[in-house]
Amino acid sequence: MTSQLHDLSFRGFASDNYSGVHPEVLAAIAAANGGHQIAYGEDAYTERLQEVFAQHFGEGGEAFPVFNGTGANVTGIQSMLPRWGAVVAASTAHINTDEGGAPERVAGIKILNVPTPDGKLTPELIDREAWGWGDEHRAQPLVVSITQTTELGTAYTADEIRAIADHAHERGMRLHMDGARISNAAASLGLPLRAFTRDAGVDVLSFGGTKNGALGAEAIVVLNPEASEGLKYLRKLNMQLSSKMRFVSAQLIALLEGDLWLRSASHANAMAARLRDALEARLASGDLHGLGFSQKTQSNGIFATLPAGVADTLRARGFKFYDWDAAKHEVRWMCSFDTTEQDIDAFVAAIGEELRRVA
Amino acid sequence: MTSQLHDLSFRGFASDNYSGVHPEVLAAIAAANGGHQIAYGEDAYTERLQEVFAQHFGEGGEAFPVFNGTGANVTGIQSMLPRWGAVVAASTAHINTDEGGAPERVAGIKILNVPTPDGKLTPELIDREAWGWGDEHRAQPLVVSITQTTELGTAYTADEIRAIADHAHERGMRLHMDGARISNAAASLGLPLRAFTRDAGVDVLSFGGTKNGALGAEAIVVLNPEASEGLKYLRKLNMQLSSKMRFVSAQLIALLEGDLWLRSASHANAMAARLRDALEARLASGDLHGLGFSQKTQSNGIFATLPAGVADTLRARGFKFYDWDAAKHEVRWMCSFDTTEQDIDAFVAAIGEELRRVA
Amino acid sequence: MTSQLHDLSFRGFASDNYSGVHPEVLAAIAAANGGHQIAYGEDAYTERLQEVFAQHFGEGGEAFPVFNGTGANVTGIQSMLPRWGAVVAASTAHINTDEGGAPERVAGIKILNVPTPDGKLTPELIDREAWGWGDEHRAQPLVVSITQTTELGTAYTADEIRAIADHAHERGMRLHMDGARISNAAASLGLPLRAFTRDAGVDVLSFGGTKNGALGAEAIVVLNPEASEGLKYLRKLNMQLSSKMRFVSAQLIALLEGDLWLRSASHANAMAARLRDALEARLASGDLHGLGFSQKTQSNGIFATLPAGVADTLRARGFKFYDWDAAKHEVRWMCSFDTTEQDIDAFVAAIGEELRRVA
Amino acid sequence: MTSQLHDLSFRGFASDNYSGVHPEVLAAIAAANGGHQIAYGEDAYTERLQEVFAQHFGEGGEAFPVFNGTGANVTGIQSMLPRWGAVVAASTAHINTDEGGAPERVAGIKILNVPTPDGKLTPELIDREAWGWGDEHRAQPLVVSITQTTELGTAYTADEIRAIADHAHERGMRLHMDGARISNAAASLGLPLRAFTRDAGVDVLSFGGTKNGALGAEAIVVLNPEASEGLKYLRKLNMQLSSKMRFVSAQLIALLEGDLWLRSASHANAMAARLRDALEARLASGDLHGLGFSQKTQSNGIFATLPAGVADTLRARGFKFYDWDAAKHEVRWMCSFDTTEQDIDAFVAAIGEELRRVA
Repeated sequence: MTSQLHDLSFRGFASDNYSGVHPEVLAAIAAANGGHQIAYGEDAYTERLQEVFAQHFGEGGEAFPVFNGTGANVTGIQSMLPRWGAVVAASTAHINTDEGGAPERVAGIKILNVPTPDGKLTPELIDREAWGWGDEHRAQPLVVSITQTTELGTAYTADEIRAIADHAHERGMRLHMDGARISNAAASLGLPLRAFTRDAGVDVLSFGGTKNGALGAEAIVVLNPEASEGLKYLRKLNMQLSSKMRFVSAQLIALLEGDLWLRSASHANAMAARLRDALEARLASGDLHGLGFSQKTQSNGIFATLPAGVADTLRARGFKFYDWDAAKHEVRWMCSFDTTEQDIDAFVAAIGEELRRVA
Repeated sequence: MTSQLHDLSFRGFASDNYSGVHPEVLAAIAAANGGHQIAYGEDAYTERLQEVFAQHFGEGGEAFPVFNGTGANVTGIQSMLPRWGAVVAASTAHINTDEGGAPERVAGIKILNVPTPDGKLTPELIDREAWGWGDEHRAQPLVVSITQTTELGTAYTADEIRAIADHAHERGMRLHMDGARISNAAASLGLPLRAFTRDAGVDVLSFGGTKNGALGAEAIVVLNPEASEGLKYLRKLNMQLSSKMRFVSAQLIALLEGDLWLRSASHANAMAARLRDALEARLASGDLHGLGFSQKTQSNGIFATLPAGVADTLRARGFKFYDWDAAKHEVRWMCSFDTTEQDIDAFVAAIGEELRRVA
Repeated sequence: MTSQLHDLSFRGFASDNYSGVHPEVLAAIAAANGGHQIAYGEDAYTERLQEVFAQHFGEGGEAFPVFNGTGANVTGIQSMLPRWGAVVAASTAHINTDEGGAPERVAGIKILNVPTPDGKLTPELIDREAWGWGDEHRAQPLVVSITQTTELGTAYTADEIRAIADHAHERGMRLHMDGARISNAAASLGLPLRAFTRDAGVDVLSFGGTKNGALGAEAIVVLNPEASEGLKYLRKLNMQLSSKMRFVSAQLIALLEGDLWLRSASHANAMAARLRDALEARLASGDLHGLGFSQKTQSNGIFATLPAGVADTLRARGFKFYDWDAAKHEVRWMCSFDTTEQDIDAFVAAIGEELRRVA
Repeated sequence: MTSQLHDLSFRGFASDNYSGVHPEVLAAIAAANGGHQIAYGEDAYTERLQEVFAQHFGEGGEAFPVFNGTGANVTGIQSMLPRWGAVVAASTAHINTDEGGAPERVAGIKILNVPTPDGKLTPELIDREAWGWGDEHRAQPLVVSITQTTELGTAYTADEIRAIADHAHERGMRLHMDGARISNAAASLGLPLRAFTRDAGVDVLSFGGTKNGALGAEAIVVLNPEASEGLKYLRKLNMQLSSKMRFVSAQLIALLEGDLWLRSASHANAMAARLRDALEARLASGDLHGLGFSQKTQSNGIFATLPAGVADTLRARGFKFYDWDAAKHEVRWMCSFDTTEQDIDAFVAAIGEELRRVA
């Protein structure tokens, strides 16, 4: 059956996973179809994927395709920790707030979380929880996990990551990166992927494809093989082993073999910048009032504060987005690979109208 | 990138998940693309999927799309059990032999396994492990899990399932069915899906799509809502919640809305029957010797015994399949939706040649 | 062999579990010896223990003797939560800081921790983490856990506990109390045990015996049977089921049947008060300088700040105690049932000498 | 309170943990009392315990006192396995039948169990489940666990254990021994403890004290440090770390420093032999009929078959014991350190009377 059940005019700024699949990714899935391939990863696409990752991250690592971001994060971090290990992360980290307790229940990992102003850890912030090694009463902090770009739309510089990696390594800890939006970070920093991952000291990476136009494809990328153990078994044990893996790998190849990953992420970032720039220009000119920005816009997400009620009236007009902190009237607007300039311009106009209505 | 990396001439009888995606399923994925849809299951396709499942299984249930069969089995059974629960299953059950210990480690479930001659439990076999309720020293047997069709290619009749369900329910146990190949069972029995599931007393079902031509789509189908708790949370916790769920649901709709599920399964079964019939005819005629069948062929899998060495020479000729029990020279030959009559006839010819070579 | 291997002159203020067994507890163990008793809890002492707990906490509950405080906390809270549940607790809670990650790894429980100034939660502090019910991306906050007395030596009033219980219950959450030092709380508040537990709305209690003179005896006390499920099985599953349980129960009977629990706790509190009063008197008179108190002393523990180096010189003189926050020169001094007035007076004198040395 | 609540005349053959504490063990607990000792194992008794274990098992190992046998088995085996590991054990093994699923739920370990005629594994029996290394679909068999003496009262010879150890080690597996009744084995074999453990290739041992007259004291004994990792942390994580550990260690010292362990076990074995010998003599003389023995009596347990109804009439007369396999009228009679010759003689007489009644 090939019927389309959904309303194509439903669009918005709620999340980059409200978007569908980039046509080039869909074409890659179709190209990988037909005939037989050995299941569970011994196929030509998964083999090729290793080369593609090596081009981006260097030789000597290994990539393990998985189904989703929670699977990548939990399984990757678990492979870095003994059963008595803990991970230091920002309080806002996805592993701490949005994975339903999977790190704790599935992997048995304690998260030692630290409040941050902007979603970014620093050596000083890490030290608030990185202590107590050798004391069996304390879950042992042996991994630091950072998110790039962060859940607040900010990006670590390569230097900031290197400082964290050095700090962690000096204390016997490993560095994990949740890269659900790593392509947006690369686009924002203007750097190759390896510059702020492997070259900056990241040991294991969750590489995100889904939010950047894949149907459903993530990978655990081991950059430092000494930092990870047993991923082959843990991926199976954590129920993240795809039988027809060729189709997961083909999606990641589609993103990474050419520049689709960067094109799509750059476009999403540019749309966020267009939105913020347009609004800031109108704020600067005195045309608008009552709007604020609670975080820097360094990727495809904008965090803004609005007068009471405005978020709801905008949503009533059909612009879909989420409250981030309802008590502060803080909202999150996400752009994606398929956000258009018209989407942005229409939204800017609507925001302007609603702000003037309450002024 | 859309390049095809694999050799289309590579085909065989190793597993039904060596096959790719049925073209109608791929078309359905494409039709679900474009525009935005709410993530994590609040999309038009997942909504429609509930209706489609209700047509097959009756009203009042609920279907939870997940990524893979291990995820469906472990999460479904976990939702049927308290933390101290155990599941009675055949020793050959996939949950016991092929899920890497995921039921035990991820869900904390003890499997009380029982040897069977043909992969099928009976009330008598269940009773070997179904005892000890109320004794905290014994993991409490509160679920029976059967596989339809079994890992040995056999199929339970509806009456056999009803007898098991009654037996289990009388003892306060629930009945789970691993339906990784449930469509092959329906085709084999000539029955609607609900006749040997809901109507026979099955409480929770793992509905398998992947082995029957999906890209990667399974569903936990709750047939008796009293028998399952918290699946919404457990699916997330077990890392089986798809963000772009519309594409998982679209695959299952493609299979189930029309008759694709039955067409594909019937074809796979027919190809297995063609293989067995051809070989049996030649055995009966005295044309061939040394070949035996260790199980009935009631679906798309054949279990055969060969003279020593023949399996290897067949594989050397390019016919891919697995040993089942190498010590007994027992092999497994699986057919799938894309197995052709030519595939079968060529294989029969080759088997004949190799058997004659060693006669 | 009955030889004494340790130096009886080694005494200090490090922890109330550095003390041994109260002679009356040891006598009770001896009295329970001889003959046979059914193992695993069907003995005369465990039966009697139910009556003893009922005298203190009222009828209708049930007490489950266990080995240690971590076992009581983890198992008790687990019995209150579904697999997807989370517990709101103070950041300083023992379950968050000192149980090596057992709540997370053994019970799969996420701890949503909140910083507090004094180790005490309030309805407002609870609300920082008590939200998101129904959202499967968030571990569901379904239990609040408080510690009485707290890890910082402070005590909740009965009214404070009632306010927390009402707040929790109104939101569908249950209230757990870690009562490792509950006897010290009763002594401090001058209240019967039930006044600030069952009557104040506590649902499940970890009753602590070990720190109050038992050899090793704690109990999970279910005050509200609707709030707990499966403890019989969970105690076994969590490896906290004693075979010769009569001896665990006999210890708790020894504490609770008469007033030993209150005598011992009152004495420990009085010794802490004596220490603080003596030091405060000397501070008030100008005799001493440089000493501060970082928490109220409402039980048997004192939290003090000292000039740099003084903690170490005191320890070098043989007074054993722990740093609490070395960066702030904050130390913890604990008194126990066997702390003597001479212990206190000698310590006060030594503190005075060392403070004067650095003045 | 020191009152004795139980009926000292209640005695029987139900289990060796129905007995209480040997007076010498109780005296050792009292001797360890008084003064202060560092909690959680840094005390003089736990230090001394290491020397005592070294005397029995040789230098270079380490003993970790824990609360109970389930804790010792689960924690010890877990320390020998990665998260994806499985343990091969006899179907009758305590870890498989009597630990409530704790190995699976707490430690995430799959048990690959093998039926045996007498509770004893052999290299051939191990091979039924020891296969599939490197295949992530199969929980990896990396430990073999044997019970000495077995749950069926039989004992492995040192040579049998050595053959198992060699077989396991050659295949990259480690050998665990559940020694809940290891002292009975030593008494039965007439060998020092190390002869059939360390010297026979056992890597990690659960040393049982409780069934041999301790109040509650077991130890995980690491004989081969390369075979175990992280026990310090795992013991805490698994909630088996005693705060007042001096009293657990003192019990084990009391057993092992002199010959109490051997005296008590020899006595229990002798009582079982007296029971069996007396019955066999009367069977041989034709004085009795209808009684059989289903296992060899090589320790303190007897497995016998009785005519229908006799077990119940014996129990009605006050002789406490358990059915082992009710369908076969098979019962288990256990003797312990405090079983007397009078106990045996009275039981023999009663068995005789009841057998004659049904003859």
